[in-house]
Amino acid sequence: MYSFRNDYSEGAHPDILNALVLHNSAQEEGYGLDSHSLKAIALLRTLVEDQNADVHLLSGGTQTNLIAISSFLRPHEACITATTGHIATHETGAIEATGHKLLTVSAPEGKLTPDLMEPLLLEHHFEHMVKPRLVYISNSTELGTVYRKNELVKLHDYCQEKNLLIYMDGARLGNALTSEGTDLTMRDIYQRTDAFFVGGTKNGALLGEALIVRNTDLQADLRYLIKQRGGLLAKGRLLGIQFEALFKDNLYFALARHANAMAQNMVGALQEAGCSFWLDSPTNQIFPIMDNRVITVLADNYGFYIWAKINATHSAVRLVTSWATTNEAVQQFVVDYKNALNSTVV
Amino acid sequence: MYSFRNDYSEGAHPDILNALVLHNSAQEEGYGLDSHSLKAIALLRTLVEDQNADVHLLSGGTQTNLIAISSFLRPHEACITATTGHIATHETGAIEATGHKLLTVSAPEGKLTPDLMEPLLLEHHFEHMVKPRLVYISNSTELGTVYRKNELVKLHDYCQEKNLLIYMDGARLGNALTSEGTDLTMRDIYQRTDAFFVGGTKNGALLGEALIVRNTDLQADLRYLIKQRGGLLAKGRLLGIQFEALFKDNLYFALARHANAMAQNMVGALQEAGCSFWLDSPTNQIFPIMDNRVITVLADNYGFYIWAKINATHSAVRLVTSWATTNEAVQQFVVDYKNALNSTVV
Amino acid sequence: MYSFRNDYSEGAHPDILNALVLHNSAQEEGYGLDSHSLKAIALLRTLVEDQNADVHLLSGGTQTNLIAISSFLRPHEACITATTGHIATHETGAIEATGHKLLTVSAPEGKLTPDLMEPLLLEHHFEHMVKPRLVYISNSTELGTVYRKNELVKLHDYCQEKNLLIYMDGARLGNALTSEGTDLTMRDIYQRTDAFFVGGTKNGALLGEALIVRNTDLQADLRYLIKQRGGLLAKGRLLGIQFEALFKDNLYFALARHANAMAQNMVGALQEAGCSFWLDSPTNQIFPIMDNRVITVLADNYGFYIWAKINATHSAVRLVTSWATTNEAVQQFVVDYKNALNSTVV
Amino acid sequence: MYSFRNDYSEGAHPDILNALVLHNSAQEEGYGLDSHSLKAIALLRTLVEDQNADVHLLSGGTQTNLIAISSFLRPHEACITATTGHIATHETGAIEATGHKLLTVSAPEGKLTPDLMEPLLLEHHFEHMVKPRLVYISNSTELGTVYRKNELVKLHDYCQEKNLLIYMDGARLGNALTSEGTDLTMRDIYQRTDAFFVGGTKNGALLGEALIVRNTDLQADLRYLIKQRGGLLAKGRLLGIQFEALFKDNLYFALARHANAMAQNMVGALQEAGCSFWLDSPTNQIFPIMDNRVITVLADNYGFYIWAKINATHSAVRLVTSWATTNEAVQQFVVDYKNALNSTVV
Repeated sequence: MYSFRNDYSEGAHPDILNALVLHNSAQEEGYGLDSHSLKAIALLRTLVEDQNADVHLLSGGTQTNLIAISSFLRPHEACITATTGHIATHETGAIEATGHKLLTVSAPEGKLTPDLMEPLLLEHHFEHMVKPRLVYISNSTELGTVYRKNELVKLHDYCQEKNLLIYMDGARLGNALTSEGTDLTMRDIYQRTDAFFVGGTKNGALLGEALIVRNTDLQADLRYLIKQRGGLLAKGRLLGIQFEALFKDNLYFALARHANAMAQNMVGALQEAGCSFWLDSPTNQIFPIMDNRVITVLADNYGFYIWAKINATHSAVRLVTSWATTNEAVQQFVVDYKNALNSTVV
Repeated sequence: MYSFRNDYSEGAHPDILNALVLHNSAQEEGYGLDSHSLKAIALLRTLVEDQNADVHLLSGGTQTNLIAISSFLRPHEACITATTGHIATHETGAIEATGHKLLTVSAPEGKLTPDLMEPLLLEHHFEHMVKPRLVYISNSTELGTVYRKNELVKLHDYCQEKNLLIYMDGARLGNALTSEGTDLTMRDIYQRTDAFFVGGTKNGALLGEALIVRNTDLQADLRYLIKQRGGLLAKGRLLGIQFEALFKDNLYFALARHANAMAQNMVGALQEAGCSFWLDSPTNQIFPIMDNRVITVLADNYGFYIWAKINATHSAVRLVTSWATTNEAVQQFVVDYKNALNSTVV
Repeated sequence: MYSFRNDYSEGAHPDILNALVLHNSAQEEGYGLDSHSLKAIALLRTLVEDQNADVHLLSGGTQTNLIAISSFLRPHEACITATTGHIATHETGAIEATGHKLLTVSAPEGKLTPDLMEPLLLEHHFEHMVKPRLVYISNSTELGTVYRKNELVKLHDYCQEKNLLIYMDGARLGNALTSEGTDLTMRDIYQRTDAFFVGGTKNGALLGEALIVRNTDLQADLRYLIKQRGGLLAKGRLLGIQFEALFKDNLYFALARHANAMAQNMVGALQEAGCSFWLDSPTNQIFPIMDNRVITVLADNYGFYIWAKINATHSAVRLVTSWATTNEAVQQFVVDYKNALNSTVV
Repeated sequence: MYSFRNDYSEGAHPDILNALVLHNSAQEEGYGLDSHSLKAIALLRTLVEDQNADVHLLSGGTQTNLIAISSFLRPHEACITATTGHIATHETGAIEATGHKLLTVSAPEGKLTPDLMEPLLLEHHFEHMVKPRLVYISNSTELGTVYRKNELVKLHDYCQEKNLLIYMDGARLGNALTSEGTDLTMRDIYQRTDAFFVGGTKNGALLGEALIVRNTDLQADLRYLIKQRGGLLAKGRLLGIQFEALFKDNLYFALARHANAMAQNMVGALQEAGCSFWLDSPTNQIFPIMDNRVITVLADNYGFYIWAKINATHSAVRLVTSWATTNEAVQQFVVDYKNALNSTVV
C-alpha cells in the first residue's frame, strides 16, 4: 500500500533530523528564545526583506490560524473565506471556538477576488450583523491552485480600500512559490498581506509553521496570545532547528519543487493515458477524474481521497505528492492506472 | 554558563532521537492514527491496567490542560487549584480564555487537601457564583513536592462525595513516581483521578504529554476537541514514536529517577555545606536558601530562578535537574557555591 | 409617518402596563424568584401540560438564543439552521461568540426538513469537522411562514434518530399558533422540541421571552448560565408581571390573532388591488411585490423594509403588523398604495 | 416581613412608570434609536459636560460589566479588581466566560489604591502570565464605601502611568454621588475613568444601566458588541424613557439621597442603641454588628443578609435601603432591634 493521501505521511527530511541530532545536547533557552529559533527568524526576515517582520514558530496549521485570527480581531469582527477554505471545512470550528464567525464565499478554484466578496460586504452594513474584517486566503489553495501576483495585488488593494486585513494560510506555501509559472515571491506575499504563515509540516519538517506578521498594529503581545492558546513549546529549539535547516540553504524550496515536479509528472503521464482533470492545479495536489471501477481497483494498493463525484460513473480523486515521493512511485501508479483501466473499463 | 533553570534546556534523550531516525521514512497515517501512537497508547494502557483508558498524545502542558479542562466542564463550572498551580500562575490565563474561572486555594507545599477546599465549597452555593466542578492538582507540584497515596485517596474520596472531578497535571509525573519514598504508581493515579497526563517534554522527549482519561463520561469526542484547539498534529508519529520509546523499556522512569538523584545529590552536598532549604522536595526541583551575595556570584556562571525572598539578606532559589544533568555539573555547582560563600559572606 | 417596519414599534399592551402599576410597590424577591414570575411559570407549565417543564424568563431573543444554545452544547458541537435563521443573519454572530459554529442549510420558505439536512449530516462525519448537534428552527419563521404539525413531527422524529436536539425560536410564536389553518398547539411544540421560547417582546410586552426546556438532560443549572451571560434581571418581577398578564386570560393569543388578522386584511386588500406576493405567509409578516416607483412614493409616509429584489423594476417589501396595528392604518395604506400605483406606474 | 435585603425589592419610582404609560402608544424606532433614548443620552452627556461621550443604555450590571470589559480587552489582557468586587464574587464568572482572567487584590473597605496594586503589577511582567490592563472599581463599593476625589485622581494618574484602563461599576453610583461629605461629581468620574456606568436598577428604575465611555479608543463599534452579547433591547424605549425620567429633573439624585438618608438614620439610631458597625459606610448599605440571638429574632420579621462572622457570638449583617424605604420602616426596625436586644441578650 502506497499513500498519495497527503503530504504528511513520512517523517522529516534527513537534513532536518541530522540537525536535530547535531544540536541535541547543547543547552538552550526555552520557549522559542533559543539560538536556533533566533537564526530561523533572521533567515525568514531576510527572505521577506524586512528586519522588523514579527516571526513566530508554531506547531501546526490549525493552531496558527486560530492564534493569528483570534489575536487580530475584536469579538464582533468576522473572517471572510472561500467555502473551500481550510478554516471553514476541516478545522472543527477552531475559529468559531475563539468567538469569531466565518463568512463564506463560493469561489471557483478556491480563490477569492474582490468581485466575489463585494456582495457580502454590501450586505454586512450594520450592527445586527458581524463586521467583516479579515480575509483568509490559502496559497496554494485546498484545490492545489495558486494566486498570481496581479491577483494578490488586486485583492490587497481592495482590502486596503475596505479596511480589511488580509491573512494567508501558507500550509503549502512552498508548493505555491515553486509552482510552474508562478510570479510570486515570499517578499511579494509579505508586502501584500498583513500576516501569513510558512508551512513546514507539509514540506519536510516534523512539525512547524512560521507565522510572519508585517502589520505593526497586529504585532503587539503575540507571544502572550501564543502562550495562552497552548502554542508556546518549552523546547522551542525543536521548531528553530527545523526552520533553520529549511531556510539556511533553500532546502525549503527544493523540497517543494520536488513535490510539485512529482505531481506534474503524474499529470503528464495520466493525461497521456487519456485521463482528464477536475481542475488545473500546478502544485502537489492533483485531481484526476477516473472511472469509479478504476478507483476501486487502485484503492487496493494506493491511499488517496475521493474528492468529488463528477457523474454517475466518474469521480475526481485527490493525489498528493511530497518531498518524499519518488518518481518510481509515480510511474508505478500510472502503470497500475493503465492496467486498471484496461481490465475494468473495456 | 550552565543552566539549572529548568528541565527542558536540552533536546531529547538519544534513544528517542534514534527511534525518530529509525522510523522516519516509513509512511504512516496522520493525526495520531499511526502505528507508533497506537503502540504508545497500548503501553500506557498496560501501565494503568485498563484497556479502556482513553489516551491522547498532545504537544505541551498548557495545551493539554486547556483542552482537558475545557472539554470536561460546562460554561458555569469552575476549576479549583492551589494558588501555586501552574494553570493559575504561568499559563497566561489559558483556562479563563476557554471561559472557565479558576478558584484558588492557598496550599502549603502546593498540595490540595479536603480541609483546604472545604470553605470554598461552602461559599459557592448558589447561581450568583460559579459552580466548583473540577479539582486541578499537579504531581510533582510546582514546588517539587509529591502526593502520598493516602493523600490522593482522601482527595479522591472527597471529590466523589462532593461531585467534583479530579485532574492531575503530570508535567513532572515521572519525577513524582520515582521520588524517594513514594508509594504511588501510575495505576494508583489512574484509579484515583478522572483524568491525568504523563509529561514527556520535561522528561526526555522533544515534546509530548499523554492525556489519560479514565472517567467514561469525559471520553466522548475528545479528538474533536483536540482538533478544535489546534492540538492534533498532522505527523502524530512524532509523539507516538517518542512515547513508544519512553515506555517500551521503562526509559521514562529511568530518566526521572536520574533527574531526582542529581537533585538529591545536590541537596545533600549543599546541606553539608550548611545550606538550608525553603521546603523539603524529594524530586528534581530544589529550593536552597542562599545569601543574596552568593546568589549574585553564582548567577555569573549558572542559570536559575530566584523563587522567593526569605528576608532582607537571603532568598530561595530554584534549581532544576533533568535526565541530562551530570553529577559533574552538580558537584561543580557545590564547589562554586562554597567558594562564593567563603569569598562573599565571611 | 406610520411604521410597518416591525412589531416592536409601540410600548406594551395597556393591560400589561396596568399590571406593572398595580404591583409596583409590593416588595418581591429578586432575580426571578418573585411571586409573579412563579405564577407566570405555573401558567406556562399548564399550557404545555407538564409541571416539570423548566421555565426561565429572559429579556430578548438574541439573549435567549445564545444562552440556550451555549448551555446545551459542548464546544465542538454545532447548530444547524436555515440560512434565513435569525441566529445566522441578524444576531451579530452571537452564537459563534459563545464558541459554536452554525451550519446553514438553504431552505425554501425558511423551514427546515430532514431532506434538507441530510447532506449536511452525511458530510460531517469525523473529527476534522464540527459535530452537528442542535437544530434551530423559528416559528413563525423570518419569512412569516409556519410549521404544520406533521412537519414538526417528522423533524422531531428525524432528530431523535440522528441524536440531534431541536430548539425553536418563538420570537413570533404567538403569530404561528394563531395563524389561519394552524394545527399546532404550545403543547405540541413542547412535546416535539427539546426546548423552545415564547416571545413576549413582539407580542405586547415591553420585553421578555420565556424559555421552556422539556429535555431534563438540558435543565441542570440553567440559572447559573443565565446569570453568567448577564440574563438574570435583579427586578425579575418586570418579566413575571408581564408574562402573568399575557397568559392568565389568554391575552397573548388574542394579541397575536389581532396582528395576524391585520396582516391578512392587508394581504386581501392588496391582492384585490392586483398586488402579488413574494411568498405565502399566514402570519403578521407579509411580503408584497411592488413596483420600485410605488415603493419610493410609499416610503415617504410609511416605514418598512425592502426585503428582496425581484427584478429590475420590482421588489418585495416586508410589512409587519402588531397587537397595536389598527384596521384604519391598514386601510389607509392600501388606499395610498392604490394612489401611488395610479400616479406612478400608469 | 419587611425586606432590607437589597435595593431592588420594589418596582420603579412612580414618575418612571408614569412616563412609560404616557409614551406607550407612540411609535418609536427600535434598538435604542428611539427619541427617548436619544434624549436620555443627551442629558447624560450634559452631566458629564462632553457631547462626545459615548452612551449606551443596557439592562443590568452583570450585562454591562461583561460587555464593557470584553469589548475593551484583547484576549490575553486581564482585569484587576478588589477581592470584594462584584465581578469577582457574584457574577458567576461572567468576565471569565468572555475569556478574561480577573486578578484580585485584597482591599480594605473594598477600595483599590496604587499601593495595593503595585505588587501585582510587578509580578505580571512576562508572557507566561496575563497582562493586567483594566482596573475595575465600584462606587459605592460592595461594602457601601465611596471614593474621595483625591483617591480617584491618584488612581487615575497611576493607571495612566502604567497604561491601565480604569472602569467604574456604578450600580450604586447615585448613592456614592449623594453621600454625606462626598466631593465627587459625575463629571469628575467621567474625566478620571475610561468608562463607567450609571446604575438605574438599584435607584428607581425597573431595569437599566447607562454605560458611558470617554476613551475614544474604546468607543468603536460598541453597538455591535452589545448586540452580540444579547444586550440590545428591541424596545429600547423602555430604557430611554426611564433614564430620561431619572435625569431630566435630577430625580436620580433625589432618590439616591433619600436612600442614603434612610440608611444613615438607621446608623444613628442603632448607634444610640449601642450598636457598633463593621465598617463606616456613608451610603445605603450599612453593616451593624449584632448578637447572633438578636439576629435570629429580627430575621422573623425582616429580610437581610448575614454578611460576616465577627466572633463566636456576633455577626455583621447588611441592611440596604432604597428610594422606596420609609422612615417609619427604619424606626420600626430600630424599635424591634432594641426589643430583641432586651429580650434575648440580657
